[in-house]
Amino acid sequence: MAKIAVLGYGTIGSGVAEVLRVNHDLIAEKAGEEIEIKYILDLRDFPGDPLEDKVVHDFDVIANDPEVSVVVEAMGGVEPAFTFAKQALLAGKHFATSNKALIAARGADLFEIANEKGLNVMFEASVGGGIPIIRPIFSSLTADDILEISGILNGTTNYMMTKMAEEGSDFDDVLKDAQQKGYAEADPTADIEGHDACRKIAILTSLVCGKQVDFEEIHTEGITHISATDIQYAKAMGRAIKLLAMSRKAEHGYAAMVAPFMLKSSHPLFSVKDVFNAVFVNGNVLGEAMFYGAGAGKLPTASAVVADVVDIVRHKGAGNQMGWSKEKAVLADEKELSFAYFVRTTVDQAAVEKVFGEVEYVSAGIEGEIAFVTPVMDGAAFAAALDQLDGVLQCIRMD
Amino acid sequence: MAKIAVLGYGTIGSGVAEVLRVNHDLIAEKAGEEIEIKYILDLRDFPGDPLEDKVVHDFDVIANDPEVSVVVEAMGGVEPAFTFAKQALLAGKHFATSNKALIAARGADLFEIANEKGLNVMFEASVGGGIPIIRPIFSSLTADDILEISGILNGTTNYMMTKMAEEGSDFDDVLKDAQQKGYAEADPTADIEGHDACRKIAILTSLVCGKQVDFEEIHTEGITHISATDIQYAKAMGRAIKLLAMSRKAEHGYAAMVAPFMLKSSHPLFSVKDVFNAVFVNGNVLGEAMFYGAGAGKLPTASAVVADVVDIVRHKGAGNQMGWSKEKAVLADEKELSFAYFVRTTVDQAAVEKVFGEVEYVSAGIEGEIAFVTPVMDGAAFAAALDQLDGVLQCIRMD
Repeated sequence: MAKIAVLGYGTIGSGVAEVLRVNHDLIAEKAGEEIEIKYILDLRDFPGDPLEDKVVHDFDVIANDPEVSVVVEAMGGVEPAFTFAKQALLAGKHFATSNKALIAARGADLFEIANEKGLNVMFEASVGGGIPIIRPIFSSLTADDILEISGILNGTTNYMMTKMAEEGSDFDDVLKDAQQKGYAEADPTADIEGHDACRKIAILTSLVCGKQVDFEEIHTEGITHISATDIQYAKAMGRAIKLLAMSRKAEHGYAAMVAPFMLKSSHPLFSVKDVFNAVFVNGNVLGEAMFYGAGAGKLPTASAVVADVVDIVRHKGAGNQMGWSKEKAVLADEKELSFAYFVRTTVDQAAVEKVFGEVEYVSAGIEGEIAFVTPVMDGAAFAAALDQLDGVLQCIRMD
Repeated sequence: MAKIAVLGYGTIGSGVAEVLRVNHDLIAEKAGEEIEIKYILDLRDFPGDPLEDKVVHDFDVIANDPEVSVVVEAMGGVEPAFTFAKQALLAGKHFATSNKALIAARGADLFEIANEKGLNVMFEASVGGGIPIIRPIFSSLTADDILEISGILNGTTNYMMTKMAEEGSDFDDVLKDAQQKGYAEADPTADIEGHDACRKIAILTSLVCGKQVDFEEIHTEGITHISATDIQYAKAMGRAIKLLAMSRKAEHGYAAMVAPFMLKSSHPLFSVKDVFNAVFVNGNVLGEAMFYGAGAGKLPTASAVVADVVDIVRHKGAGNQMGWSKEKAVLADEKELSFAYFVRTTVDQAAVEKVFGEVEYVSAGIEGEIAFVTPVMDGAAFAAALDQLDGVLQCIRMD
């Protein structure tokens, strides 16, 4: 019998309890022994809850109980999660978390302690919710030079972009709809400005390059400037606008960014709709692969957390230690990457061609503007060209 | 330095050598030491090949060399692959293979020996080529009751179905085209009759249920009866016809089959085109997930084989032993599963409705026949109803 403690009894924490209850027997079979929640740490009490008597308010109770072999963190945020994680590891307990903010900011510190102590830090649920992606990158994609890892990593914004495409609605309307459905929070900034996706691509990039990426160095654009008009143009080209979190190998290392992209219909991420997430990988020998599934939600995320616990219990800590070193990753400038760009402007074709040379014009029946696709060019060249063009209404990368 | 032997220097075997050469340094970093091919076993010689001097013709040279820690098998077929695999394990060597026929037929025997000897048998490349699927099922999807695992597991037939859909061509024409392109063999039976996909779904089902599935018990239909007319109807319904290999939980265990399905556009496998493969998983807490990529080909398949070798070397055999027990899996009758069926017949609506009650008719402008979709019914009920209907031209499951 493996005894675990769950920190935070909100959506994910209670999901972990539910998964362990619903699939109790098969999880015991996979893990080699039963897994039981001994403590739940939360500020609140949960009278009437089946696990009511497991609730404690003091982390020391957990840290000091030698029976607890795994601590599961589902509180979110960097603190006090980091302090608890560190304390758990120093007390000889394995650690599993769904917390992207914690892993993006302090992952390497935790891996270091875990390595010293022969313990595991697992974080499959921190990116892509229930989609197995952390473990496959670490354990399966080991023969490849990863040229690109890109994902639709935020369900809220993907739901919004899908809704805008399907209904032709404007940004503000779909945001209200997403908030009503509970997909977007009252303060939607972290989703719509790309901050959530930014932390997730920082984690994937760290994993791929083996060093700690500083997420604050990642160029991050949100979707707030995407309009129904942009969607009309995308449709006219048979494309979809998606908020991508991308890391692509440039001459001087990985260049990472979060930005809206107009994807062609043959791109594996084109068909990823609604709140679903997907991660696209391009390896130098593997070629293209994609991992798709529910990127958030109580049970899918809890499924990944519990799978981490099963992995730990099954191998008694001797299994794969995933992670990366404390060395700081040096990211390449995202302007090193080359794309074609979709541009809308109020000036005429002559003005456009003076700056960009031959371009491909796009018509979507919109008055008072013209739209075109530039040749493939790197970010620096595009920025320089754009400086010389007046009346620019929009520009979106294409892939 | 880990020394390995490669059995068979054909497409996959030479791919393994190429991947180890091209990505030598990063593979050494991931594995914790360099990986070097010491022997290549083949009937032929390869004068001028960079590894010419590694070629041997007698397996005993490999089995008796204590320096060889991993044997990689890329010959295909059950024998002599099984004999060599067994001999390698008995000589204390880990074993990695891309051979679906071997694992489907004798996997449990090999896992048993490996477990007794504390060795690994790895077979990531046996299903879905380069797509990580075996390891994710075994190591990541451990918190779920797997309700369904289905895949597009044969690239040749998926290329053919894609071509038929895109060009409206008939079966014989696309088969010729696939043969010319090298996607289909001179004798295409194993692909177009579903035998290849059958072995792969047998492996996935064994992995999910933990017992040895007898692939000969899996209901297997190919695509030879699919016509351009069927594709026209599928298009009229916004659907695609795909050869699926499916295992779905029924009342009495997993029911497995290989058969063409008409998939709706929202199905994750709908957009999988050309020679690509994908595996769809539905877990009771995870929900829907999909793994997509190159299902065959020299380098993608070799990428998966080498990743297995890296896993073995990295953990010195102490890592995950994947596999299943020798106990025979009892499969449920595939007729227990319920689907709606697409049916074409030469009789009139009155005759159809007398047998099936209310149905949904489909028009694709074809003269001399009618087509309809039945209500959702189990396979036994459908078979009984079909017996009473005259003039049946076609029936295809829908999902």
